[in-house]
Amino acid sequence: MGKPLAYKILENHLVSGRLVPGEEIAIKIDQTLTQDATGTMAYLEFEAIGIDRVKTELSVSYVDHNILQSDFKNADDHRFLQSIAKRYGIWFSKPGNGICHQVHLERFARPGKTLLGSDSHTPTAGGCGMIAIGAGGLDVAMAMAGKPFYLRTPKIVGVYLEGKLQPWVTARDIALYLLSKLTVKGGLGKILEYFGPGIKYLSVPERATICNLGTEMGATTSIFPSDEITRKWLIAQGREQDFVELLPDENAQYDEIIEVDLSKLEPLCACPSSPDNVKRVAEEAGKPVAQVIIGSCANSSLKDLLVVAKVLEKYKVHPDVSFEVNPGSLQVLENLVVLSGLKSLLEGGTRLHQSGCLGCIGMGQAPPTNSISLRTFTRNFPGRSGTNPDFVYLVSPETAVASAIKGVITDPRELGEYPEVVLPEKFIINDTLLIPPLPEDEAKKVEIIRGPNIAPLPPFDPLPETLEGIFVLKVGDNITTDHIMPAGAQILPLRSNLPAISQFVYKNVDPDFAKKSLELKEKGLAVGIVGGENYGQGSSREHAALAPRYLGVRVKLARSFARIHRSNLINFGILPLTFENPADYEKISQGDSFIIENIRNLIEKGEKRVKIIIKGKGEVWALAELTERERECILKGSLLNLAKAG
Amino acid sequence: MGKPLAYKILENHLVSGRLVPGEEIAIKIDQTLTQDATGTMAYLEFEAIGIDRVKTELSVSYVDHNILQSDFKNADDHRFLQSIAKRYGIWFSKPGNGICHQVHLERFARPGKTLLGSDSHTPTAGGCGMIAIGAGGLDVAMAMAGKPFYLRTPKIVGVYLEGKLQPWVTARDIALYLLSKLTVKGGLGKILEYFGPGIKYLSVPERATICNLGTEMGATTSIFPSDEITRKWLIAQGREQDFVELLPDENAQYDEIIEVDLSKLEPLCACPSSPDNVKRVAEEAGKPVAQVIIGSCANSSLKDLLVVAKVLEKYKVHPDVSFEVNPGSLQVLENLVVLSGLKSLLEGGTRLHQSGCLGCIGMGQAPPTNSISLRTFTRNFPGRSGTNPDFVYLVSPETAVASAIKGVITDPRELGEYPEVVLPEKFIINDTLLIPPLPEDEAKKVEIIRGPNIAPLPPFDPLPETLEGIFVLKVGDNITTDHIMPAGAQILPLRSNLPAISQFVYKNVDPDFAKKSLELKEKGLAVGIVGGENYGQGSSREHAALAPRYLGVRVKLARSFARIHRSNLINFGILPLTFENPADYEKISQGDSFIIENIRNLIEKGEKRVKIIIKGKGEVWALAELTERERECILKGSLLNLAKAG
Repeated sequence: MGKPLAYKILENHLVSGRLVPGEEIAIKIDQTLTQDATGTMAYLEFEAIGIDRVKTELSVSYVDHNILQSDFKNADDHRFLQSIAKRYGIWFSKPGNGICHQVHLERFARPGKTLLGSDSHTPTAGGCGMIAIGAGGLDVAMAMAGKPFYLRTPKIVGVYLEGKLQPWVTARDIALYLLSKLTVKGGLGKILEYFGPGIKYLSVPERATICNLGTEMGATTSIFPSDEITRKWLIAQGREQDFVELLPDENAQYDEIIEVDLSKLEPLCACPSSPDNVKRVAEEAGKPVAQVIIGSCANSSLKDLLVVAKVLEKYKVHPDVSFEVNPGSLQVLENLVVLSGLKSLLEGGTRLHQSGCLGCIGMGQAPPTNSISLRTFTRNFPGRSGTNPDFVYLVSPETAVASAIKGVITDPRELGEYPEVVLPEKFIINDTLLIPPLPEDEAKKVEIIRGPNIAPLPPFDPLPETLEGIFVLKVGDNITTDHIMPAGAQILPLRSNLPAISQFVYKNVDPDFAKKSLELKEKGLAVGIVGGENYGQGSSREHAALAPRYLGVRVKLARSFARIHRSNLINFGILPLTFENPADYEKISQGDSFIIENIRNLIEKGEKRVKIIIKGKGEVWALAELTERERECILKGSLLNLAKAG
Repeated sequence: MGKPLAYKILENHLVSGRLVPGEEIAIKIDQTLTQDATGTMAYLEFEAIGIDRVKTELSVSYVDHNILQSDFKNADDHRFLQSIAKRYGIWFSKPGNGICHQVHLERFARPGKTLLGSDSHTPTAGGCGMIAIGAGGLDVAMAMAGKPFYLRTPKIVGVYLEGKLQPWVTARDIALYLLSKLTVKGGLGKILEYFGPGIKYLSVPERATICNLGTEMGATTSIFPSDEITRKWLIAQGREQDFVELLPDENAQYDEIIEVDLSKLEPLCACPSSPDNVKRVAEEAGKPVAQVIIGSCANSSLKDLLVVAKVLEKYKVHPDVSFEVNPGSLQVLENLVVLSGLKSLLEGGTRLHQSGCLGCIGMGQAPPTNSISLRTFTRNFPGRSGTNPDFVYLVSPETAVASAIKGVITDPRELGEYPEVVLPEKFIINDTLLIPPLPEDEAKKVEIIRGPNIAPLPPFDPLPETLEGIFVLKVGDNITTDHIMPAGAQILPLRSNLPAISQFVYKNVDPDFAKKSLELKEKGLAVGIVGGENYGQGSSREHAALAPRYLGVRVKLARSFARIHRSNLINFGILPLTFENPADYEKISQGDSFIIENIRNLIEKGEKRVKIIIKGKGEVWALAELTERERECILKGSLLNLAKAG
């Protein structure tokens, strides 16, 4: 029976376990990446582990999220990260060099390799035929320390692409179509593997767009084969030596198959305020637009920008629209300049920003009140734009530029003939802002530069015998890590300061959450949270576990958990329990007191069923479905304690 | 006796008064400009005056300061400003189009005209032979309403330039040299008029740099003649029709003459933390640099950026330096692109930002803690960078790039041969982001769009019979409006919300100032402030008067005042008093109670001497040197009340 490509690569990297869906495996990690918003904490953790130099084939520290520098904090973090990179044998991508995923795709992604990144959109590199997984910072720190990465073997969903996209219909629309089918949780516990005759029409950056947005479906990762298209990409990047052909077996057996006829797709958009709230652009057409942004790790490649530039050779941006362009990388920007694309963008009336994540993570570019913003970004969770409420649509660059010209949401097919875009066979390569690792003897002499906002990690106490406390918060389905630990211009700069950032946990849901929790913690009581389905979807930020833990959260009881968040909870000693009977969700109210007796003993024994006594309401049974390693971690209080102990 | 050029232009615009230094004159204003940080308030005031359409020849509303958009506030302000512009016949320069002074120089500055701008660096346009003056927003609102602008006739200082600059020595160094001679208050009550054989080597943007930095000397404005160089500039801008030759009389009589031999100047820098703390770059050479920025209204012209680009054809930026480029305008950026300058900048390792003020006003680009930042900006007041303490040097683009390459402060002459830079005879003109005024009948139908952060103006009560209160704060010499009303990424977005921004008055000097003041105000007591020389220098922001007034400040007693701030105080009914005997400054302590009896009556009568009784310490005599118009304004409680009454 033939194997999917994903299993072949996983098999090549298998350290322990069996490739049986649901069973835990450990895999060797070849490459890691971090970005600054998760990276500062990841490297504090890496330092705590106490390794002298990274043990991966390649580790890269990118700066792309916090690049506004509204005060000293961002700049201090950049210097800290650069000094860490020098000290420990890590590549450093300076601010301005671009978005980690775009740059990684250009300079480092290698077919057949594994990449672990402390950013949920790490699967972008799957467009280049590698297994690229997003994880918490501590997981990435462990990988840099040479430890394998643990995950439950995902099912492999074969996504069969046939036919060819119509003009003005794009990779973004393929992803939006899949989001409409799978929803934001349809990919949980799965790898989406693309195959079929349709893939030959998709360039590596287009494939990367699709893999990138697999994250919004909850997928563990997404992958395309490494084929002639991949080889061309690597040649264009001056990296032909990194090419290796990698295909699934001809008769590969998939756990599930989704078929997509590309020729039948049309321009789609994700309406406010979830990436799976997908409609046809034509259905939303005519609504006035105040802001349009091209950018993010999903759609800021050279082709994305060149198409927009070509369109703007004929049209001007509507005077009432702010049309903003964030190139994905320095390379994208430079090639755009040389191909006369930037000139057309500027002539057409766009506003050019530095290369980086910017508005996608709420670092600037907040739209005006009560207005529609169209973005080629990854997420439109409520308030993530920095304006609350917001009305953010996720669209292709084609839909974006058409709407920017007309001033209202517009199906791009109205613009007539699709412009011809010719990509260079060889990109201009510019690695000036990409600093290579120092040789080992020089590295050892490097001093780490810490600013006053970089706080040391607090200790993590082990699991107590009995958990007694209060469910301080009860929330619904699809709670995102943006709900738990908001980002944005005010909060992101605090990522390296746990006591400070913890004050903002669940700020937009319950402004008193932090205060109430800390009061309980001081009394020696545990904080619990009750959630619905797909709890903790979205960004990989481990601060959504770390900061609640700092506030005294010890147990989260939900109908189901998103993968990365669940791992992060375990990594920091928060017990993720699921309802044995999902209907029991209704039994518990916010503010209920609970006791979980002998929890330490139960976890030690590997007991799966756990009794929670709800004061005045009786018992609720929950499941603690933990591997042995996970149980150890919970008992010790954090993976860091475990790593130090081992 | 021959006349200086400045007097000829003033004479042409004289509405009332005599051109005798110190005497009040009123002049007709041909053009106005606002930027967003001062503009939102200026237009709220303009609305309060109740005029249907601007009465100037030309009024432009620029957006260049608050362009990060960390939340809805900036974006809402932009929309408010755009709708105001549409409604009242004003040009609108969209965010991304660039810095008001650079764009104004390119598109609107006209020899022989008068320009009033709600930004202290409005004199930049003096480089194009016009009288361009910075003022408070309310003054600009009055000018838009067709009212003349009042000022005391300045003395005219003739700055005689002879010789030619050596390679690597620039317009910035001329200004720094003058700053070292004049200090930040040497220009008070003066216009600096440049003449002599040396001016023929200076292009209009270079002249503009020099006029721009005259603001840091406290000058009312600075001006260059309109000559062949000016004509070339206007031709290059496609505006030859705007040219008129304007020279001083041959034997023009200046109140004072400063002679500068350009050939003897060398690269200079303003050391932390005042623009007049000038040293030779060579003296500071070797100090490590963390950040270098090219930008601001002083030095972000095409020539500035092209020189840097040319240098970077041969060198790369030092890996430990973040080298950031903020083009002055969309025009600069586009011409830079076409002349291959941007490619060289990107190849060399710079980080390109959107066109605008950005770091110069503390909107992003804050440097790391305990590190040196070199900037081609206008000011290095303490903490203005967003990092506190900071170590900001002001330098030429040439010194900036040399230091960025070496990683330490470097005299640019070390780089060898000065690169040849050829500027286009005709610039590529791109006015896509510059929206012309609507015809009157269409304009009347426009609805103003107000976001929730745009608060209406509060009422301003008239001067009471007697002022009784407490000197809540006593400060030293050269207090800047940045001390009084800090800017930066946190505070600037509140510029259209007086109650909110008032909480930050004197925040870095006395964090409790706002609280203490409001408590007194509630008790019906007046708040007083005691200052030294040149009180209120720096930015034109009227919020440095408006916000204290909101907190209950009614009197400021200082050794001397900076011009724009003094006007702003009067505009909002705060009494500016100077010590009759400067030594009495020592008599008063912070927290002292005071009574000024019958002040209303004294001001009505035009009494100059005012007795201040300091509780427990006796009397201090102060001077109220006010014109009749100023007295009326103080009595009414604000110029706005006066305008409505009239």
